[in-house]
Amino acid sequence: MATLLGTTTPLRAKTAVASRRAARTGAIRAKPVVVAAAARKQSANAAAAIEEEVYVEGAPVTLLREEDYESPMRVKFEKMVREAQDTICAAVEELDGSKFHEDTWTRPTGGGGISRVLQDGNVFEKAGVNVSVVYGQMPPEAYRAATGDDSAGKAGPVPFFASGISSVMHPRNPHAPTVHFNYRYFETDPGENTEGAPRAWWFGGGTDLTPSYIVEEDIKSFHGLLKDVCDKHDEDFYPRFKQWADDYFLNKHRGERRGVGGIFFDDMNDRDPEELLAFATDCADAVVPCYIPLVAKHKDDPFTEEEKEWQQIRRGRYVEFNLVYDRGTTFGLKTGGRIESILMSLPLTCRYEYDHKQEEGSREADAMDAFKNPRNWLDL
Amino acid sequence: MATLLGTTTPLRAKTAVASRRAARTGAIRAKPVVVAAAARKQSANAAAAIEEEVYVEGAPVTLLREEDYESPMRVKFEKMVREAQDTICAAVEELDGSKFHEDTWTRPTGGGGISRVLQDGNVFEKAGVNVSVVYGQMPPEAYRAATGDDSAGKAGPVPFFASGISSVMHPRNPHAPTVHFNYRYFETDPGENTEGAPRAWWFGGGTDLTPSYIVEEDIKSFHGLLKDVCDKHDEDFYPRFKQWADDYFLNKHRGERRGVGGIFFDDMNDRDPEELLAFATDCADAVVPCYIPLVAKHKDDPFTEEEKEWQQIRRGRYVEFNLVYDRGTTFGLKTGGRIESILMSLPLTCRYEYDHKQEEGSREADAMDAFKNPRNWLDL
Repeated sequence: MATLLGTTTPLRAKTAVASRRAARTGAIRAKPVVVAAAARKQSANAAAAIEEEVYVEGAPVTLLREEDYESPMRVKFEKMVREAQDTICAAVEELDGSKFHEDTWTRPTGGGGISRVLQDGNVFEKAGVNVSVVYGQMPPEAYRAATGDDSAGKAGPVPFFASGISSVMHPRNPHAPTVHFNYRYFETDPGENTEGAPRAWWFGGGTDLTPSYIVEEDIKSFHGLLKDVCDKHDEDFYPRFKQWADDYFLNKHRGERRGVGGIFFDDMNDRDPEELLAFATDCADAVVPCYIPLVAKHKDDPFTEEEKEWQQIRRGRYVEFNLVYDRGTTFGLKTGGRIESILMSLPLTCRYEYDHKQEEGSREADAMDAFKNPRNWLDL
Repeated sequence: MATLLGTTTPLRAKTAVASRRAARTGAIRAKPVVVAAAARKQSANAAAAIEEEVYVEGAPVTLLREEDYESPMRVKFEKMVREAQDTICAAVEELDGSKFHEDTWTRPTGGGGISRVLQDGNVFEKAGVNVSVVYGQMPPEAYRAATGDDSAGKAGPVPFFASGISSVMHPRNPHAPTVHFNYRYFETDPGENTEGAPRAWWFGGGTDLTPSYIVEEDIKSFHGLLKDVCDKHDEDFYPRFKQWADDYFLNKHRGERRGVGGIFFDDMNDRDPEELLAFATDCADAVVPCYIPLVAKHKDDPFTEEEKEWQQIRRGRYVEFNLVYDRGTTFGLKTGGRIESILMSLPLTCRYEYDHKQEEGSREADAMDAFKNPRNWLDL
């Protein structure tokens, strides 16, 4: 497989459209295709636990290694995230009226990614949807960042497989909320010098909403649809994962969440993986009905300069969260993933004011209160 | 001392001006003064290794604990950084034509800070100069962040004393560079459960320049003055600390420095502390002649929208560095320092474009080359 995807071995041509159609129809076991492969020189200074990416024209039929074509969960998870990417990008393009730009890459010994970004659109300032498959060596600190497990400090590098979809969408209008979602599947293998790091697998993910202003009915609708998805699988999920999101999407140094939460879960391996796959699939399918109507509703709302400025300040807090705490981002920066894809989540523009205060009784103060004191939206 | 600076014990009134004058004239052993003390409710969720700050009106004569009035280096270092703050702020105010806002606080059991910020000025978009004295318990991860010493992982919290000045100034004009400087003095004591964490002291600091565009004569002048200061103390300092700055002010995940460096050093304790104090003092004194003339020269340069956008992108990279790598910032966020002072370094506005490319042969490409491949400015 290493040679099939090598930087110097261009293979049969195939268009991105055909590749995606093939992926959608389940024909994902065809040989991966590399067209006009162009090696990008990665700086010697970058963290380099993952190999250099090789840009390819059009998405390969699969990003998996050939040896994984018989690994049911790896195959199914990649299929799921690629279908979700297609569906969600189509809905965003329809609302925005402009198209995503796509970058696709593979790595010499397997894995790769498909990044789609819509920047400076009509409705969205920046929207990105990434799909990736990674075969890597997790440095111990990345393993800790990924799992939150500090006890693994003494282990050596941990070989891992990861596949996931991850997305953030920042609309222009300050009354239209930002959304983030990410669904991922991980496996680790015991490697050399890996005392105490056993083979493990887990699912993780979440969907959370970051409005600048509180519109109660919008947030109820968002949380309500997520609860419906959760309840279909386990009635304990929504209360547990809603709490987890409130605990996770938190700028600890400010005691302030970035938004109004949603659901978040990680290290999930307490039941049949097929059940967890079905849950992750339903969560990904819920992104469009949860979110797109909220942007459609507010994209043309009138707004003041002060409201735009408040949105920019909230975006600054979003950057703080992503660079300081977000597991996917910190994990990606430490393992040497593709930087432009990892940091696609950052807003196009933002603002850091010194000691910004919200006027008492204002809508900004109400929003800040909701960020500091999470509400049970469905009980209001 | 805890009761003298307690939240409920207002003492004799004294103005900030009088306090600063007293500090300048060396009369820093008078009792600290707290006027209109107002406790700020710190979120229960914030990292809280340091006590809550208590806002006071006007800077106290000293931020030290009374028991430290006889500790020569603690006394001298506080005096040095407070004088530097006064001198540098005066020079910035003269250039900008507007005034710094000052916030001052103490902590119940000693220590405190003076933050001065000039936001939305005529010349500066945001300029901040902080002075602080901290008595704290360093969590092991903060000790690691501060010292870069991973071997201390097993030690418990480390009691420490720190005093420093830290500053970032972001001018409006994209042709005028940003500067950062920070000079600090640390002591740690053995505490309970601190196997392997002995009493230690060290000096650290640096001054570095972040232009959006390369103006060779400006950078030569900046580095040249820093070299003069270094050479006065040790001819090995400039080459060593210039290299250290090039290694330190680096966005590792991009293999790209935030700017054109300067000097950086840390964990310095290899000679008489008086010599290191004299060196830090000379470095702080060099800030005004190194930097202010460069802003004066470029503050009214004409610029295009594209040049402003490039500056905004470079500011985004500045935020990346500060939130992901900067020792002072990550240390401050982990030890529960005053957030608004720690994050004062972030620019007022910035921009994150997906996969921004610089046109070949452009001034932006030249700047990027200098950020990726540090130059020996004084040999050009």
